[in-house]
Amino acid sequence: MVVPFQDADPTGVAWHGNYFRYYDAARTALLAKLNFGYRRMASVGQLWPIVDTRVRYRRSIVYGESVTVAAQLVEWDFRLLIYYEIRDGAGRLVNEAYTSQAPVSAKSESLIVGTPKSLRDRIEGLIADASKRGE
Amino acid sequence: MVVPFQDADPTGVAWHGNYFRYYDAARTALLAKLNFGYRRMASVGQLWPIVDTRVRYRRSIVYGESVTVAAQLVEWDFRLLIYYEIRDGAGRLVNEAYTSQAPVSAKSESLIVGTPKSLRDRIEGLIADASKRGE
Amino acid sequence: MVVPFQDADPTGVAWHGNYFRYYDAARTALLAKLNFGYRRMASVGQLWPIVDTRVRYRRSIVYGESVTVAAQLVEWDFRLLIYYEIRDGAGRLVNEAYTSQAPVSAKSESLIVGTPKSLRDRIEGLIADASKRGE
Amino acid sequence: MVVPFQDADPTGVAWHGNYFRYYDAARTALLAKLNFGYRRMASVGQLWPIVDTRVRYRRSIVYGESVTVAAQLVEWDFRLLIYYEIRDGAGRLVNEAYTSQAPVSAKSESLIVGTPKSLRDRIEGLIADASKRGE
Repeated sequence: MVVPFQDADPTGVAWHGNYFRYYDAARTALLAKLNFGYRRMASVGQLWPIVDTRVRYRRSIVYGESVTVAAQLVEWDFRLLIYYEIRDGAGRLVNEAYTSQAPVSAKSESLIVGTPKSLRDRIEGLIADASKRGE
Repeated sequence: MVVPFQDADPTGVAWHGNYFRYYDAARTALLAKLNFGYRRMASVGQLWPIVDTRVRYRRSIVYGESVTVAAQLVEWDFRLLIYYEIRDGAGRLVNEAYTSQAPVSAKSESLIVGTPKSLRDRIEGLIADASKRGE
Repeated sequence: MVVPFQDADPTGVAWHGNYFRYYDAARTALLAKLNFGYRRMASVGQLWPIVDTRVRYRRSIVYGESVTVAAQLVEWDFRLLIYYEIRDGAGRLVNEAYTSQAPVSAKSESLIVGTPKSLRDRIEGLIADASKRGE
Repeated sequence: MVVPFQDADPTGVAWHGNYFRYYDAARTALLAKLNFGYRRMASVGQLWPIVDTRVRYRRSIVYGESVTVAAQLVEWDFRLLIYYEIRDGAGRLVNEAYTSQAPVSAKSESLIVGTPKSLRDRIEGLIADASKRGE
């Protein structure tokens, strides 16, 4: 992606709060692969609010700059823990982050203990497939 | 209000798209006075989407600058037409805008012809009250 | 583009102020073709602030929806007038807008009368090229 | 502050990335008290980019809800470490965060080791004043 002009602040670099837009696009794409986007979550009566997030800004990025944003699922037993990286055109790590999401029942608004089996099966199926393909 | 740092672009002035945040705050306050905020709209099964908006940028405003934002209801018969002004610390007009909102039934998603009587009565009552007080 | 989750408001549709992000991406791409992006403007001592904009919202768009955004330069003599359209997956026009930008000297902050020759030549060259190719 | 309508996502609660706007307003006010806002930083040739941030979302907040946002300076020797809290109308902690900022020379873009004396003196003077007043 290219850093939008309006995401840069008066010093010319992307304002720190705007990185969450970039990470959300990467998370949305990742969850779509797991067939577990926002609409799917809602259809099974679940919300997965973000409960914790951390970002480390190693280098700033300027408007008009091309960067790559990667998201990887690293934990799914009791929460979804996703790890993110932004790299610049030269491949240097410029930013890293994680988000943690917890399953909540949309009806009762209480925490669901343990990732629902349907999602866990889907994740583990995808991992098994990737493993067979030698990824 | 004070123009936030992150709303300014690399040239140091508020990015044009961010003015809609300022106008929305003024509209929310205006509609609250009419007892017709978003929650109230929803509770009577109505949506009032914005269907048309125009903004004229006469002077730019810089981050950290104090400005005043005013909103005024100018039409309410078949739509809500609100006119806005932003003035700088010296009272100069720096920006003006309007938004037009049309009533839509939340259930049928079709246009409601004519502003619902409850809202029209409320608006006209407020105007009459202001008139009695000599405003 | 796909409408981001966070751009949608509690009614599930893209909030009206967020369309300016979509239009800015289209304008940035258009100006890049003219070799007249923000950095180029700055390098020749010019700013092209947006002085007027209008948006007509014909239909709302929901998060996750795929839409196409088009930008077209329609005037360049004394200002840059760009016209925009957003169409949904079925090709229906859902939103249209224009922005008008005026040339300002970065040094004196005063208006430049007439589009600078370098930019006009570039625009007219591109039009002539497209015409030769029969576009 | 009141959570703006457009900051809420389709589930009706403030989208996680928007909290950075609320925290930035609180940090701007805190740094203004220290006479060390963005303009002051720039005037002494310094940038203080955010290098690390963490947010814990304990409860969600809905649009239209009134919340209080507090910022407190907890470290200033080699970086500015600011701790934040958002509390709801009942005084419950709903969100907490920190940001860490490192001093960088605007000219050389290299890290400045140790908080500049002028800022340290100012911070320590304010603490001594508060202490004399028994705060």
